[in-house]
Amino acid sequence: MPKIDLAAMEQTNRTGYPPQFAAAVADRWVRRLGPAAGLADFGISHVVLKPGAASSQRHWHEDEDEFVVMLSGEAVLVEEAGRVLLKAGDMAAFPKGHPDGHHLVNESGSDCAFLAFGRVPMGDAHYPDIDLRWSGGTYSHKDGRLF
Amino acid sequence: MPKIDLAAMEQTNRTGYPPQFAAAVADRWVRRLGPAAGLADFGISHVVLKPGAASSQRHWHEDEDEFVVMLSGEAVLVEEAGRVLLKAGDMAAFPKGHPDGHHLVNESGSDCAFLAFGRVPMGDAHYPDIDLRWSGGTYSHKDGRLF
Repeated sequence: MPKIDLAAMEQTNRTGYPPQFAAAVADRWVRRLGPAAGLADFGISHVVLKPGAASSQRHWHEDEDEFVVMLSGEAVLVEEAGRVLLKAGDMAAFPKGHPDGHHLVNESGSDCAFLAFGRVPMGDAHYPDIDLRWSGGTYSHKDGRLF
Repeated sequence: MPKIDLAAMEQTNRTGYPPQFAAAVADRWVRRLGPAAGLADFGISHVVLKPGAASSQRHWHEDEDEFVVMLSGEAVLVEEAGRVLLKAGDMAAFPKGHPDGHHLVNESGSDCAFLAFGRVPMGDAHYPDIDLRWSGGTYSHKDGRLF
């Protein structure tokens, strides 16, 4: 049957960020549902943020639409445009190419969980707050030097 | 801000099904979130099923992955392989090309709501229970006669 068995799926806090940017996501626990469920058209991440953890460094993608739906708990969505609290059932959409970095931060005292949807980005991602960029399939400093 | 304002989005019970197959989805109320939110990489439907309503006729797609997550209430997922109850937070995945028709039916006495993700299918969809097929961008009888 196609029902997802979360408990049977690997959960990881791995990150590709350079060490100086990794602490913010150390308590972000991710399950990649798409490959486990046999889906290839889009990516689906089930994400648990422990108190204090962020979903990512604040960023935006040139060529990847993103969508999130909160399943439990709450997190603050942070953008240049402002802050907004997302509770269970709340959703947010991030169209590709919109140059306002976003991330979710669990500022509560309890875990929160959400689903994040996207596709594998081929183009660049931009990190307005830190000296990081994603380009050509790798992270580097903004000036292109590798870490 | 990118937070979705559901109440501001049009909700419709329109269907492209021929009249003889439309009654099952008459109490299915859909909001298309992707276009309203500026997303194009994948489709996102917010669906409310009134008691007795189905998400669709039971079907499977040759070339479209589908994924659902229940937001509130409950529905029964029906396949050849069996029946399983989906409650808030439960998820299910339907890989393209898996020839087991599926749909959700609200057999409870209260509304349920879920999100459905997919992409615009270019290939055929198959409806094992009824004389219907989806091919070349249109519905027809299984033998190809148009309605």
